[in-house]
Amino acid sequence: MPGPGRIVRAPENFLDATQIADVQAGRRDFLRGAFLAAAALGSGRATAAQGDDPAILNLPEHSRALGQPVAARGYGLPSEHEKNLQRRESPGLTRVGGSSVSFAPLQGLFGIITPNGLHFERHHQGWWDIDPTQHRLMVMGLVREAKVYTMDDLMRLPAVSRMHFIECGANTGMEWGNVAVPTVQYTHGMLSCCEFTGVKLSTLLDDCGFDRKKGKFVLAEGADGSSLTRTIAMERALDDVMVAWAMNGEMLRPENGYPLRLVAPGIQGVSWVKWLRRIKVGDEPWAAKDEALHYVDLMPDGTQRQYSSIQECKSVITTPSGGQTLLDKGFQNVTGLAWSGRGRVKRVDVSFDGGRNWRTARLESPVLPKCLTRFNIDWAWEGGPAILQARAMDETGYVQPKINQLRAVRGTRSIYHNNAIQSWKVAESGEVTNVQAY
Amino acid sequence: MPGPGRIVRAPENFLDATQIADVQAGRRDFLRGAFLAAAALGSGRATAAQGDDPAILNLPEHSRALGQPVAARGYGLPSEHEKNLQRRESPGLTRVGGSSVSFAPLQGLFGIITPNGLHFERHHQGWWDIDPTQHRLMVMGLVREAKVYTMDDLMRLPAVSRMHFIECGANTGMEWGNVAVPTVQYTHGMLSCCEFTGVKLSTLLDDCGFDRKKGKFVLAEGADGSSLTRTIAMERALDDVMVAWAMNGEMLRPENGYPLRLVAPGIQGVSWVKWLRRIKVGDEPWAAKDEALHYVDLMPDGTQRQYSSIQECKSVITTPSGGQTLLDKGFQNVTGLAWSGRGRVKRVDVSFDGGRNWRTARLESPVLPKCLTRFNIDWAWEGGPAILQARAMDETGYVQPKINQLRAVRGTRSIYHNNAIQSWKVAESGEVTNVQAY
Repeated sequence: MPGPGRIVRAPENFLDATQIADVQAGRRDFLRGAFLAAAALGSGRATAAQGDDPAILNLPEHSRALGQPVAARGYGLPSEHEKNLQRRESPGLTRVGGSSVSFAPLQGLFGIITPNGLHFERHHQGWWDIDPTQHRLMVMGLVREAKVYTMDDLMRLPAVSRMHFIECGANTGMEWGNVAVPTVQYTHGMLSCCEFTGVKLSTLLDDCGFDRKKGKFVLAEGADGSSLTRTIAMERALDDVMVAWAMNGEMLRPENGYPLRLVAPGIQGVSWVKWLRRIKVGDEPWAAKDEALHYVDLMPDGTQRQYSSIQECKSVITTPSGGQTLLDKGFQNVTGLAWSGRGRVKRVDVSFDGGRNWRTARLESPVLPKCLTRFNIDWAWEGGPAILQARAMDETGYVQPKINQLRAVRGTRSIYHNNAIQSWKVAESGEVTNVQAY
Repeated sequence: MPGPGRIVRAPENFLDATQIADVQAGRRDFLRGAFLAAAALGSGRATAAQGDDPAILNLPEHSRALGQPVAARGYGLPSEHEKNLQRRESPGLTRVGGSSVSFAPLQGLFGIITPNGLHFERHHQGWWDIDPTQHRLMVMGLVREAKVYTMDDLMRLPAVSRMHFIECGANTGMEWGNVAVPTVQYTHGMLSCCEFTGVKLSTLLDDCGFDRKKGKFVLAEGADGSSLTRTIAMERALDDVMVAWAMNGEMLRPENGYPLRLVAPGIQGVSWVKWLRRIKVGDEPWAAKDEALHYVDLMPDGTQRQYSSIQECKSVITTPSGGQTLLDKGFQNVTGLAWSGRGRVKRVDVSFDGGRNWRTARLESPVLPKCLTRFNIDWAWEGGPAILQARAMDETGYVQPKINQLRAVRGTRSIYHNNAIQSWKVAESGEVTNVQAY
């Protein structure tokens, strides 16, 4: 079952050597053979006699008695058996829990949607559950008329619903300095993906009659104590940026900006301003605290790169991943996520030998722009050491770099925008660990 | 805010007569004019002076103090302000809550994804939280070798992730007999939509070597006390049916079949067997209790139609809908859901005058086969009585029928498979009610 230490089991001798060779050569017909081999060896699964009727066996209570009624819980929760699957704070990362991070448990997630209860968190001064009837959004600056919107005002406007990933710019940041944190939850867990519903920012800017000549930038400001402010170029603001009130079918969660947040597809999470209270149109970037002191990339020559806000193409294998253990050799589905802040993922290749050989993974539909894409690929583990890597390419032709390629340009002192290929080492014991491999 | 009685507010005089005419003519440039008119009238929204800085105003506590820390809740929950948005049982529908229904609150949902906590429920003998380490799936019958799978066995297999709607065959069943239940939660709320992850049923059938000549049907059986069994034609079983363990990124919820359920895209919900424990391959339909006594369509001539399991093309406006109130005249976004068990939704038309005139709505991407599709359309309410209807068409060319067209063929004594056009009446008071209009 999924969990921080999810164990991926593969019965011993599940495939024989010929079948393993088939898998490694990418032949697609190995699966039936694999199962036949497993059955022939009598391993892995019990074999049932034809015609056995479970109804006459010694049935568990849940097959004999009346269960719980409907609406036992007006708002449902996960199984008691899944309690271990939680977003988790990295202890000591910041001094105060209100300015910290909790990571999404990617190792136990499936598909592309992140359930709202497990969406990653990053706050600058803690989260609040703001009364939506009291909340207002002001649009001001280089506009013909500044306006203040209630939630009711906004929710009557033409709405759009779009699926997008959100990734903190600092995601995978510990890897710059060879600090290999143990699990994919902590290496890549500042990543989530939702269907968002809201009004396009361009609709609001039009409504206020923004200055099309002088208005080159937009400032977004949150209503929490940090008064987080971020600059967005007008071209981008008019493209696909949304002022959203819903995620995955329901109103935003308090930790994710209830009742209103900015959705800035493809841009790092800090710009997706939560508890959004103000939009200002201006003629130059604001160089606010969180875009001058923080969220800048320190380069090898000592200068810093500012406003590098697009999340470049990236991928990671989520199962198997650090902290998991393969208990047995044989066939398994290797799965992960790929994404690009510039559009659609075009292809994901996976290597099982540290980058020497690559095979192309299956992408699960739908493959949407600036959205997570789930990939799956077959693998038969022979029991020896292996290094697993995924490498994504987006529709612009950009290919996810190796960590040494990225370091050659960016050095090792950055925090943000590490989109390097991630390596997981599988030991002979089956234990999976985070390694840096070139 | 969304809730069973969600109020849709529209400031009075928001549009003038010319602009209303523009909207009704479908002209797309009315919006800016509408806002200008509203501003000119000084109605609806406060107008802020240019350059006002919210930071110096009398700020609420959440803009001044430190909020809650990250991971305050390992598994997050909705805002306290959304407590009213729940799935709800229809009192008295059945004698026991364990064999009843709870309806999803469609009037307060957005986009196409149903959050797992609000997914509709229909149980036959209550729900259980089954220990996944103890759960088994047997595949048997006309197969070369019957097998028993653990969850670990299944989760190692090639996985797929797909978004699909699930609708109970009895959804909208009360409308057959002119019983106009008050809200869209109770008329259409046995409907949800998730991203499911699992293994294709065809993979398991292949693995067991099913008899390709004689094996014409598949029986699926649940592990709850009702031992619910449903027949599925082999052609369909080999198409897109899945044995799924995950919904919307996480393991299935107990109420939805944890740890394993069948996903039978396009087919009525009863066939999506929960707590799935057995798959049997056979050469004829089983005519089990729930496909002989129940889930049959009583026809006008007294015969019953059996195995009519496909959910035909259907749509419903969710806002505004029964129980909501328009407080003011003027512009609003009218929104709803459309779906078809036969493929993609091709078009949704909306009428504001009980079906005399129709305009085509915007479909929000992605538009996926056998999946909910969100539609939106602009409307300016003049303040008079109106009857709102949505009419969907799928990619096969099938058009959703009027209720009298459906009754002409099916009579009025059915429970199941009512996919008629739904009518919502807006009174001059703004109150929205469920009516039957032809």
